[in-house]
Amino acid sequence: MTAALDSVRLDINREIEQMLQQQKPLLLGINPALGPMFSQVENLLQGGKRLRPLFGYCGLRVAGGEWNISHAKALTSLEFLQACALIHDDVMDDSKRRRGNLAVHEYFKESHSTEGLRGDAYLYGIGSAILLGDLCLSWADELLMKATNFSSDVKELWDITRTELMAGQYLDLFAQSSLEPDTTLLDSVITYKSAKYSVERPMHLGAALVRHDVSLERTLSAYAIPLGKAFQLRDDVLGVFGDEIETGKPSGDDIREGKYTMLISLALANSSETESEKLKSLLGDHSLSESDISTAREILQQYALPEVESLIEKLTREAQNVVDTLETDTETKELMRQLIVMATARKQ
Amino acid sequence: MTAALDSVRLDINREIEQMLQQQKPLLLGINPALGPMFSQVENLLQGGKRLRPLFGYCGLRVAGGEWNISHAKALTSLEFLQACALIHDDVMDDSKRRRGNLAVHEYFKESHSTEGLRGDAYLYGIGSAILLGDLCLSWADELLMKATNFSSDVKELWDITRTELMAGQYLDLFAQSSLEPDTTLLDSVITYKSAKYSVERPMHLGAALVRHDVSLERTLSAYAIPLGKAFQLRDDVLGVFGDEIETGKPSGDDIREGKYTMLISLALANSSETESEKLKSLLGDHSLSESDISTAREILQQYALPEVESLIEKLTREAQNVVDTLETDTETKELMRQLIVMATARKQ
Repeated sequence: MTAALDSVRLDINREIEQMLQQQKPLLLGINPALGPMFSQVENLLQGGKRLRPLFGYCGLRVAGGEWNISHAKALTSLEFLQACALIHDDVMDDSKRRRGNLAVHEYFKESHSTEGLRGDAYLYGIGSAILLGDLCLSWADELLMKATNFSSDVKELWDITRTELMAGQYLDLFAQSSLEPDTTLLDSVITYKSAKYSVERPMHLGAALVRHDVSLERTLSAYAIPLGKAFQLRDDVLGVFGDEIETGKPSGDDIREGKYTMLISLALANSSETESEKLKSLLGDHSLSESDISTAREILQQYALPEVESLIEKLTREAQNVVDTLETDTETKELMRQLIVMATARKQ
Repeated sequence: MTAALDSVRLDINREIEQMLQQQKPLLLGINPALGPMFSQVENLLQGGKRLRPLFGYCGLRVAGGEWNISHAKALTSLEFLQACALIHDDVMDDSKRRRGNLAVHEYFKESHSTEGLRGDAYLYGIGSAILLGDLCLSWADELLMKATNFSSDVKELWDITRTELMAGQYLDLFAQSSLEPDTTLLDSVITYKSAKYSVERPMHLGAALVRHDVSLERTLSAYAIPLGKAFQLRDDVLGVFGDEIETGKPSGDDIREGKYTMLISLALANSSETESEKLKSLLGDHSLSESDISTAREILQQYALPEVESLIEKLTREAQNVVDTLETDTETKELMRQLIVMATARKQ
């Protein structure tokens, strides 16, 4: 089954490359000054685990589909949508790095400074990144429509996916802006921004490439939603305890950014007043020392990590139960189990 | 003919309203916290001249089409695309106001400050605006596809339109970042950001709703490109000499923002060294007094305004010549002439 996933990943990589090579002459034909925009998106899309297309592939398998090139093209659109989300997200969070490189807005900001250009380097950076994200969003759609021969079922799912993604992202911004963390709201963020966007909708999309079946969609949701939530919780854990080299982002960034993740919110709720105040004072300070980060990690480890890990386990089991009772071939079941491991036991 | 344009405008307004009312329960159903996002886009879309749909209508007429509801729906997508462009553009330029109200990012920044929320108010503002622009971009596409029943000719035009828009916007950012204004580059910006995006592609889109005809597209371009350039040059003039109440934006904003418009670039190139240095020293200073703005206006009036006005006249004549030799009905010709006046002799 790993071989199947690897082979799907290769197909996706090839389709990304092909789409980029189609857009390149168009973009540079408008003006060669667009070169850096192209290089940045090419660069960004070289990285990534292709998780969303893999979930799409899984949905397609459960629906009984036979994998082919036009499926690969259709699901590659998810990688372009994700590129838009990442580029725009990094602007919103003012994150400096992504997939081991400078974030897009940081790249353009730095090139503005290095070349001694006119105007505000920061605005130049975010302006370029906003536009590159917009391009990726447009290209995602372009690719999907061409690949699916304009199927209206698929298009409807695609429309919902985009609206839910943007809505989930805004809910996250909103949740982060409240003075005290609100775990109910955070759960809604996790549902829309992660569970639906990263797992459920890609699976629905994959299934819709084969046939339109509401009851099948429901079954896929029963697997996807808990798994997607577990996926996000694993992300929260990696954002604090992850290995910098494996994740490609500085470890402890969630603390420096003061992000209300479920992990951090639970620690604030469960720890003593002194420790909660201590943790609060560290959150959102970009100049934290390694020892400050360690202090925060200790509080999180003591008051929230076990609960989050057991929540991940519970959600993972829910997803596993769906697989166990599903009527499908053994290979597809094995694939679904493998994706559970990939999403929840990963290190990056 | 004015009555026809007014009636098209009413159809577009109704379709905007209908699309918004369709999205509202979806968005608020995800979470009521999305209320302000919805209000902001509703607010923004109440304003605007509907110029792009009107050009689309004109293209449709030249192609011999009979206006109907699904045409109105299809061309309304241009207003949602424009909403995305405006929201994102205001973030990039850090413009404070739009259509007489706060710009979207300013609205969210201010509400963050007023409500004493957590985190950086500026990032909250731009984050919300980026996402609202993304939503508008997605909705634009959603509306177009539904209205046109997934026509691949229309979709292809739509894809080009979006790519050219984003490319043109980036070229503008890039042109603004060079130490000295580059009129060749600025001409390319005007071509993509204005002439193609605001006039040519909407006309092509309108025509494509009727039939696919490359030679017709070429004729429309011969009218649209000079007219679109004249439209942008009029915008440059209004950005410096316009009436604040009519334009809905502070007059002199282009000077405060230090924008290299064609008008400003020509003044820098044509004026004496002393005056050019004086103008340069005023550009990009957000704290300019009314008297500073007047000084800049005088230099622009003396060294660039006559040239820009005569360029507008020349381009307008080019567009008019196309109308004169075009084989189409008298009413459509009158419409095309009316649009020339609207685009080039406007005050807002």
